[in-house]
Amino acid sequence: MGKVSPFAPSVYPDLPALAGVRLATAEAGIRYRGRTDLLLVVFDEAATVAGTFTKSRCASAPVDWDREKLAGGKARALVVNSGNANAFTGMKGRQAVEATVAAAVAATACEEDEVFLASTGVIGEPLDPAPFAAHLALLATKAEPGGFVDAARAIMTTDTFPKVATRRVVTDGGEVVINGIAKGSGMIAPDMATMLAFIFTDAAIGQPALRSALSDAVAETFNAITVDSDTSTSDTVLAFANGKSAEGGATVLDADADALAAFRAALSEICRDLAHQIVRDGEGVSKFVEVQVTGAETDASARRVALSIANSPLVKTAFAGADANWGRVVMAVGKAGEPADRDRLAIWFGPHRVAVEGMRDPDYSEDAVSAYMQNAELMLRVDIGLGRGQATIWTCDLTADYVAINADYRS
Amino acid sequence: MGKVSPFAPSVYPDLPALAGVRLATAEAGIRYRGRTDLLLVVFDEAATVAGTFTKSRCASAPVDWDREKLAGGKARALVVNSGNANAFTGMKGRQAVEATVAAAVAATACEEDEVFLASTGVIGEPLDPAPFAAHLALLATKAEPGGFVDAARAIMTTDTFPKVATRRVVTDGGEVVINGIAKGSGMIAPDMATMLAFIFTDAAIGQPALRSALSDAVAETFNAITVDSDTSTSDTVLAFANGKSAEGGATVLDADADALAAFRAALSEICRDLAHQIVRDGEGVSKFVEVQVTGAETDASARRVALSIANSPLVKTAFAGADANWGRVVMAVGKAGEPADRDRLAIWFGPHRVAVEGMRDPDYSEDAVSAYMQNAELMLRVDIGLGRGQATIWTCDLTADYVAINADYRS
Repeated sequence: MGKVSPFAPSVYPDLPALAGVRLATAEAGIRYRGRTDLLLVVFDEAATVAGTFTKSRCASAPVDWDREKLAGGKARALVVNSGNANAFTGMKGRQAVEATVAAAVAATACEEDEVFLASTGVIGEPLDPAPFAAHLALLATKAEPGGFVDAARAIMTTDTFPKVATRRVVTDGGEVVINGIAKGSGMIAPDMATMLAFIFTDAAIGQPALRSALSDAVAETFNAITVDSDTSTSDTVLAFANGKSAEGGATVLDADADALAAFRAALSEICRDLAHQIVRDGEGVSKFVEVQVTGAETDASARRVALSIANSPLVKTAFAGADANWGRVVMAVGKAGEPADRDRLAIWFGPHRVAVEGMRDPDYSEDAVSAYMQNAELMLRVDIGLGRGQATIWTCDLTADYVAINADYRS
Repeated sequence: MGKVSPFAPSVYPDLPALAGVRLATAEAGIRYRGRTDLLLVVFDEAATVAGTFTKSRCASAPVDWDREKLAGGKARALVVNSGNANAFTGMKGRQAVEATVAAAVAATACEEDEVFLASTGVIGEPLDPAPFAAHLALLATKAEPGGFVDAARAIMTTDTFPKVATRRVVTDGGEVVINGIAKGSGMIAPDMATMLAFIFTDAAIGQPALRSALSDAVAETFNAITVDSDTSTSDTVLAFANGKSAEGGATVLDADADALAAFRAALSEICRDLAHQIVRDGEGVSKFVEVQVTGAETDASARRVALSIANSPLVKTAFAGADANWGRVVMAVGKAGEPADRDRLAIWFGPHRVAVEGMRDPDYSEDAVSAYMQNAELMLRVDIGLGRGQATIWTCDLTADYVAINADYRS
């Protein structure tokens, strides 16, 4: 797809191997040639699992499967393919899921209910799972601890770089590690993208605590980014905890353990890191933008205003043009339909206040703001002036490259 | 701004002069050079007036004025300028409105409450009304019946062609004429665009009936188009009826008169015609697309699904690429959050059904659909399969030209 994001990292962090978590990838030839497109993760002993999924009414077949199997709360295998989303594929989609699960069960000697799946790529094309049986059998034998960057690479679609993050957390029972991988480039370009993230930890943690920690982390990270306002059929975040931390055996993190606070913080950091990487690899991206809304009546209201700004094509094209076009920001506040008083609005680009009390700030310097807008990373703040509600959303600009990538893809 | 829309008409319809309605335009130099940017319409006797406005919470100063003055229900003068929206201009904006009204009152010898205003152009720049007094005085003396195309030209911003429409309605009391003019190019690019439409008729009609006819017409026309999902601070539709129809004097159209049905139908046709022209002049447009949603639980639900499709950047870029990418249509249905059953969806591009019962239509011909997608005017239909709710929305594609126009404008 040509151009690599200007935000692609030059080096990747070193993700430690996790005891009892083995990974392997293969070139299954699902759609792409000359690259890996199939990932198997094996948990030698069952890991606790929690997940969050797309809100789409047209969710993919793998999302349906995972939602149902989360009730069991245990995972022995994770299978992810890129190239085909197995979405909007009807009965054939369900059959492909069943065949993939059967292949994973045979390869890893686990139960059906312990297999989790994700697929990302083209919508509406039947996914042929026939090659999976042989590939998964081989991958199960060659899977090894570590290899997270290779895993992140195998699940890419329009992504221009693999997305990984890692943190260590010190607990009373010793140190635990959390590793995460993700993919996504259109926040959601469902035709070939989708947001997937997988978190692995050697902490021992019960499902309710893991679920709670994951939900809270996702709300402020993966659910606070937007590239193009389009929601995938396949968005999936899964977290696996196998209790195999190297030091002193299992470190049990209950919902009320003090250690859980540190774990939650680290999990949120990983999710934020990965979420930002997705925006930094947004299709056609040239600017990374943090949109802060303060002074709204409630946090929920602030969030809706921030999303209205971050999703506005006119605001996004202004960023692409390095144009501090606060008139369009006013428009986006106005169209959000949230409580707002035109004559109390204030707007900043970075440190520069450009509008105050419903009109242009008489003191602002167009030259200084224009110079600021040349930066690759930008901050936009809007104060509504009504209350204490606030929210932050991260987004990127809308460029001609975004149009080129998406006007050309399928044909 | 360069390229003219491929949908620009080669000839304009002949709009008859209306007795008692006089128009004139001037080059006031508000922002543009070498073109008209100020329109005065004088009603020699007060016309009944009705209006609908933007739902923005940050409406412009002229919108505030008009909303308040509609209570009086009578108009003697309409003043419209392009180049500056007089929006987000605080106290200075209100002062500019008052000065413009005073100039119109002096020029036309009417009451303040009989003056209606609209401004379109840059947001946040103070509008200097100083030149208006002399211009409006001169325009009032030279205003003449007719000249609707020139009037439409004076209110353009990023528009690449003036938008006019006309209809004749036969009533028991004789024939009446309805003329309309409009502007808009981004459905709303508030920085320089905005949707404005003005309807003039020589029918005699009371304000309640005119208001009702206008609201109903707007709901299915101007409120059923989208170029880029962005809502202006300044959207305004005003209808004026002065009862001066040439034949047999005033034709009174009451809410219960049979003749009102024909009038309403003609008014809706004019609004639809003008609304379509706005989409056909959408910024960077290369395709005009009708999105039909049927089989939803309710009409309102169908409308939300249709807007989700019509506003999706991924669906719009697919149209730009002549790509029958129904996977993105599924995505847009799914993200709308409306009742939908993935396994009952059916999707057509023009006459070609591409998906049925939640999967690809096994009988569809990619070649036939690809050939269809080369057309400049396209129809997309989605049947939800749940009920009888339906809606139609008109939109255009999202092209690299849209980005170029909007990434470059202000600076």
